[in-house]
Amino acid sequence: MITPGVLPVTPTSNIRISSHGVRAKCLQRLVRLGLPVPDTLAIDMHTILGISEGQPIDTDAVIAHFGEDALVSVRPSSGAPEWGGPTSILNIGMTSARHAKLSHELGPKAADALYTRFLQSYAVQVARLDPDLFGPDRTIDEMRAAYDDAMGEPFPEDPAVQLAAVLSSMSLAWNGVTARLLRQARGAPEDAGLALVVQRMVLGVGNPHRGESGSGVIQFVSSETGVPQITGRYMRQSQGREALIPDADALYLISDPRGPSMEEENPDILDQLKHYGQLCRTRLREEMQIEFTVSHGELHTLDALRVVRTSRAALRIAVDLATDGVIPEAEAVLRVPPKALLDVLHRQVDPQARGEVVVTGIPASPGAATGRIVFSARAAQSAKAREESVILIRRETTSGDVLGMHASAAILTERGGVTSHAAVIARGLGLPCVVGAAGVTIDSRARRIRLPDGRELGEGDEITVDGSTGRVFAGAVPLVQPEPDASFRTILAWADERRDIGVRANCDTPAEAAVAAGFEAEGIGLCRTEHMFFDKARLTVMREMIFADDPADRAAALKQLLPVQRSDFLEIFRIMAGKPVTIRLLDPPLHEFLPHDRQGKLDLAASLDLPMARVEARIEALSEVNPMLGLRGVRLGILVPEIYEMQARAIFEAAIGSAPRVTPEVMIPLVSSRREVEIVKARIEAVAAQVRTESGIEFDYRLGVMVETPRAALRADEIAEYASFLSFGTNDLTQMTYGLSRDDAGRFMSAYVAEGVFPEDPFLQLDVDGVGELLTMGANRARAARRDVTLSICGEHGGDPDSIAFCRHAGFDYVSCSPFRVPVARMAAAHLAIRARGETTTAPPRR
Amino acid sequence: MITPGVLPVTPTSNIRISSHGVRAKCLQRLVRLGLPVPDTLAIDMHTILGISEGQPIDTDAVIAHFGEDALVSVRPSSGAPEWGGPTSILNIGMTSARHAKLSHELGPKAADALYTRFLQSYAVQVARLDPDLFGPDRTIDEMRAAYDDAMGEPFPEDPAVQLAAVLSSMSLAWNGVTARLLRQARGAPEDAGLALVVQRMVLGVGNPHRGESGSGVIQFVSSETGVPQITGRYMRQSQGREALIPDADALYLISDPRGPSMEEENPDILDQLKHYGQLCRTRLREEMQIEFTVSHGELHTLDALRVVRTSRAALRIAVDLATDGVIPEAEAVLRVPPKALLDVLHRQVDPQARGEVVVTGIPASPGAATGRIVFSARAAQSAKAREESVILIRRETTSGDVLGMHASAAILTERGGVTSHAAVIARGLGLPCVVGAAGVTIDSRARRIRLPDGRELGEGDEITVDGSTGRVFAGAVPLVQPEPDASFRTILAWADERRDIGVRANCDTPAEAAVAAGFEAEGIGLCRTEHMFFDKARLTVMREMIFADDPADRAAALKQLLPVQRSDFLEIFRIMAGKPVTIRLLDPPLHEFLPHDRQGKLDLAASLDLPMARVEARIEALSEVNPMLGLRGVRLGILVPEIYEMQARAIFEAAIGSAPRVTPEVMIPLVSSRREVEIVKARIEAVAAQVRTESGIEFDYRLGVMVETPRAALRADEIAEYASFLSFGTNDLTQMTYGLSRDDAGRFMSAYVAEGVFPEDPFLQLDVDGVGELLTMGANRARAARRDVTLSICGEHGGDPDSIAFCRHAGFDYVSCSPFRVPVARMAAAHLAIRARGETTTAPPRR
Repeated sequence: MITPGVLPVTPTSNIRISSHGVRAKCLQRLVRLGLPVPDTLAIDMHTILGISEGQPIDTDAVIAHFGEDALVSVRPSSGAPEWGGPTSILNIGMTSARHAKLSHELGPKAADALYTRFLQSYAVQVARLDPDLFGPDRTIDEMRAAYDDAMGEPFPEDPAVQLAAVLSSMSLAWNGVTARLLRQARGAPEDAGLALVVQRMVLGVGNPHRGESGSGVIQFVSSETGVPQITGRYMRQSQGREALIPDADALYLISDPRGPSMEEENPDILDQLKHYGQLCRTRLREEMQIEFTVSHGELHTLDALRVVRTSRAALRIAVDLATDGVIPEAEAVLRVPPKALLDVLHRQVDPQARGEVVVTGIPASPGAATGRIVFSARAAQSAKAREESVILIRRETTSGDVLGMHASAAILTERGGVTSHAAVIARGLGLPCVVGAAGVTIDSRARRIRLPDGRELGEGDEITVDGSTGRVFAGAVPLVQPEPDASFRTILAWADERRDIGVRANCDTPAEAAVAAGFEAEGIGLCRTEHMFFDKARLTVMREMIFADDPADRAAALKQLLPVQRSDFLEIFRIMAGKPVTIRLLDPPLHEFLPHDRQGKLDLAASLDLPMARVEARIEALSEVNPMLGLRGVRLGILVPEIYEMQARAIFEAAIGSAPRVTPEVMIPLVSSRREVEIVKARIEAVAAQVRTESGIEFDYRLGVMVETPRAALRADEIAEYASFLSFGTNDLTQMTYGLSRDDAGRFMSAYVAEGVFPEDPFLQLDVDGVGELLTMGANRARAARRDVTLSICGEHGGDPDSIAFCRHAGFDYVSCSPFRVPVARMAAAHLAIRARGETTTAPPRR
Repeated sequence: MITPGVLPVTPTSNIRISSHGVRAKCLQRLVRLGLPVPDTLAIDMHTILGISEGQPIDTDAVIAHFGEDALVSVRPSSGAPEWGGPTSILNIGMTSARHAKLSHELGPKAADALYTRFLQSYAVQVARLDPDLFGPDRTIDEMRAAYDDAMGEPFPEDPAVQLAAVLSSMSLAWNGVTARLLRQARGAPEDAGLALVVQRMVLGVGNPHRGESGSGVIQFVSSETGVPQITGRYMRQSQGREALIPDADALYLISDPRGPSMEEENPDILDQLKHYGQLCRTRLREEMQIEFTVSHGELHTLDALRVVRTSRAALRIAVDLATDGVIPEAEAVLRVPPKALLDVLHRQVDPQARGEVVVTGIPASPGAATGRIVFSARAAQSAKAREESVILIRRETTSGDVLGMHASAAILTERGGVTSHAAVIARGLGLPCVVGAAGVTIDSRARRIRLPDGRELGEGDEITVDGSTGRVFAGAVPLVQPEPDASFRTILAWADERRDIGVRANCDTPAEAAVAAGFEAEGIGLCRTEHMFFDKARLTVMREMIFADDPADRAAALKQLLPVQRSDFLEIFRIMAGKPVTIRLLDPPLHEFLPHDRQGKLDLAASLDLPMARVEARIEALSEVNPMLGLRGVRLGILVPEIYEMQARAIFEAAIGSAPRVTPEVMIPLVSSRREVEIVKARIEAVAAQVRTESGIEFDYRLGVMVETPRAALRADEIAEYASFLSFGTNDLTQMTYGLSRDDAGRFMSAYVAEGVFPEDPFLQLDVDGVGELLTMGANRARAARRDVTLSICGEHGGDPDSIAFCRHAGFDYVSCSPFRVPVARMAAAHLAIRARGETTTAPPRR
């Protein structure tokens, strides 16, 4: 041992990530694999911490280890690459004497370059002097004078003194408040330490007559796609990562029409690098980027880092490693974060693009889209007819906007949070959506939006909405459209083999069902039927029904809706090809189907041939103070039986007409008491009996309940006696458990989370303590009453990995989520199952 | 024994209510007391049931018991007087021979009268013939011929046959479907049986030369007031209750200027009756009405019934019986149904009055009032200034109507249920209120209301609202105003000595506090502060606060509200004289303080000197989709800290200025998580510290939480760590547990209850299964975390006896209810405690 806490990096030295950081550990692995790593010392975290507390180390001994003539580099080695760390410093040990010697050996130009680089980094990073005084135009003498002038002492000529100052400066920087906060924000623990790596410099500069010299980096897959390909640059007479500087006079690594390449000019070096890359891949079980230096024709590997990668590349790399037998399939699954699958599916703003961000809101549905602004659902539909791409801007959206949302490329709302109507529907449709756009004011009548900076945009102006980050850009911004490739299906197939909880999708339309089927959802867990009534022709009939004076007129209106509803179901059954489909009976209050603006009311009066006063009176009579807690769901089903009877008939007639035959699941919404289920169940059974008699065809169906009220969860035992499945609607359940409307919470939720009142937005992340207890209680009680009851959740939480973990733990049969989140859910479920079973995770590297 | 199942009523016979009914048992008691009861047989329920199943009894033996010459009556004797039963039949045994004999003994007129009455009742009630054929104008021969004609056989001449037919007809009638449903609706069990009493007739008619003859009824207290006074009538030459027929030629019992009296004409008989009355009172421990007959100068007591009484009389009678030592005080308490105390307090429509009911709604707050119609709170206030009595009619009320409600004599709303805003406030104010008036249409702009029959009423038209029954009358209807007398205070004092759960009142104003203090509430359990801001001057400042651009402006506006708020509290503390007062910090969303009509907005813009657009934008920005679940309660308190800080200061400054000193209780509304309490608590503690420093006065206060969200109940343990009391707001808790808005539920709740979906309106009767479980869970968890936490409920349920029972069982410290319900709650709590301790209830009568 050189000095306490300093350890030579050898195959057998006791390097651990916990004490020496990932870089030191990685270097040790390279050494073990026989890569030509220059002589390296690791200084452990405890020792570095000690420096900041005034316990310096014996740098004389360190310098002695490398020899008087050596130059060394110091690089950070923390617990994880993303925690950051001080910038590396090269060429420590440069003194006037050494400079003179190198001028002789390598030529004055090379020696000057080494010395100026060291002077510059030392002055700026260690002595914290003004960078302008140490610009590239300065000579060595000028720099030394500037140093002397500013510091009141000459530039240190003792390598040990230089090293001590470097170590001390890095130690202090790491323990400063700013760095601490920054790395904690990136997930580092409070006591995360810094280790340092001191490595003998191999100089990539020098007299070319003594052989090739230079430096570069290489990796063997694309960071963008993960496809195998050699990428990197090499530059003669360079150090560090200089070859990557744009416009540098660098070589390509493999033959390239754009310029000279190492493959042509120095194929031996390239062959060695390929060999080392393959060694890293198979033995470190990872795609690595190697930093190398060629000195006088000889290759040295200074460092290797895990290749930086997009989600798409991560997926491809994991699949390839497992396919090649380098890692087990289960580990490949674990290596892909579930949410990474979303990135693979949605268009994104090109990371290279520089657009002007005009407003930022809450990212509510990922992906990006460009289009012209419209301010009404109607305008969106007209634009769609003209095949224009439009962005629908609304203060907030309602059911009446859904068709307009369908017609839009993206949605932007002034209000709302991640579970507002706009957000939920947009996620269902896979549309980019930004909600709660802070500081904009929308004037729908004037069709203008005022931006926070005071500017205004009007209908037809072009913007780009980035639902992944919440940014809204002026004009069109370049987008990139990732294509899920074969590895997407492969990794999900591996995930499916391992997961032990089902994944269904929430789909309201055949288009959504097609997406769900494409993502191999195991069925539909929630098919909301209300959106089916917003088509113009249907809406008119729906309104006739609402204005009907007696049950007979109501039934007549509903009879017109029966065939269209039946064909909706038939189409969905066809797409799902025999997989289970859970259809929720009509849920929203009737007033959602009525117009609220004067023109709409006039049109309605004309179409129903009723006096305007009558129309207004009816709309007024149906209006509610708290629609969320009003006459909707099963309450409507009980008081206006004809609606559910029509829907049940449509479901059953579609079921007997479907091929392959499906066993439809009929779900009753907003239940709060056993008797509601009992009553509706009896009526639906009667409809089933009628359909059987009329058709002469036997069929099965299942009847279940959507548990959305706290009371339904509390009374799940008696409700389960009448329900063969219970699906927990965690959106509404969260609203009622907290007494918090998701439509109104957006306005203050961010402040609430920022002040730490709520640890997280409970609409985004399942509230395990409160809502979770109701879920567990409901599940346990239901199972106790009926052993074979099917349990699931179908709220927005269904696609959230933490919520899936909760449901799996609570013994739920499946989760149901937006179709675009089905891959995420499948992946998250697989992670849970693999971890629970303790299947191979990161195995220790083979020596 | 005469025949199986038939028992002579003697002091020692085995008569039980369960087998022989209350009438038979009462007659036995009269016999035991030595009252001159004619010879009586009781036929038990089992035997009567047998008759309907075809097992006739030996009526020859029964007739033989009374002797060939006797006439008998048959009267029903069921388990409780209110269960009804067949009409009594008198003079059974009348035959041609007996008629001839009686003509000789009593004179033909008297004998004819007896015979025709028997013929008539037998034909109509037993043979079920057309009553028109047996009218009073018919002769005996005509009636016999009509009977023969209709039945195809002569009128029975055998007393035993007559009796058998009577018994059989009564048995069948009792077991018919109609009678069964009717008595079950009155609380009878499904298998309630009928016993019958056969009694020898003592004829009140006959030759006056053989001595005085006649019949009558007497009681010794007023049925209206319970005040001791002899009431009743006596008629010579009459039978049964003929003396009570209006315009009958009857005698008053005691000297009366309106006509002749028994006291003057036959004082001996009256003395005997007084003696028997006193005997009944002391030995049957009840005020009885005695039915008597005088035959040839001799008194016979045929029957005695518990005196029919109003709630007021019931109270007085119970107090008098206990004061006289006839019954224990605890029993007097039990004899007064808690809700009867409400009747004593509210004006009622004179039961004799015949008004025209123009519409019927849900009775939401008891009492009755007459006034002229107004359609706005402002009009109500103007009318009050003119000292006019007005009825405020609204579609539904909001906080902005409260001052107008204060100014009104009664409230009528088109919408809402028993826990709508109108209902809750009206009960708090003790105002009669009818809500959910079915079928009316209100046109507030035209100031007209259209009635279900198509008629219209306009502003200024007079109506009478009866909040006890839900009836609305056209014009003024005579009202009666009961005065609570000394017995009211006496019985409540006895109740208080026995009850073991506290009773506080929900009071928002000094006026309400005065009512609560008058009813001896033990404190204020809920003082809502929002109503304090609707006074015009305060409202303006409140609106300035809402429109303030920054915290400093907001604080400045709030500073203006501080002194008025402080004086509100001072006045309430003064009235409550040291009793605890729980003040709830501001709860409603801010938009409730803003105008919603155009004129109001214009006025506001003018008074704040702001452009109309700015006012409209702010109102729009604050509007909410589901205000019930929006930015209100503690959420507002956290995001706009100045409001709670001002309120806390006002409370503390009032507390140190009050004499006697009070320990105020500060309550945080709408809590759903621990952290909310922690944050607000810290801020309020800081205010308390400031006030202590500024004033140099030490004071105590308690900080607690209103548990209104299911989540607060679930997390009561961690919340209790920061709260010294938890008060369950069962209104909101019910809304959230069911997902049911009380403002919107009125529209369908009656249908829901009628169809048996909910056994009862959960806003009216605490839902023990669902909401109750949350209460119990919350209480247990809170107690486990903090042994000395004070637990209470302060919702509308606080005044409901069943809910009080629930709270007492769950170990709550007190209930808090509308001030006018405080007496009911005190009484109900006493009932529970007495029953739980098994204190003397209905002791067996002394022999």
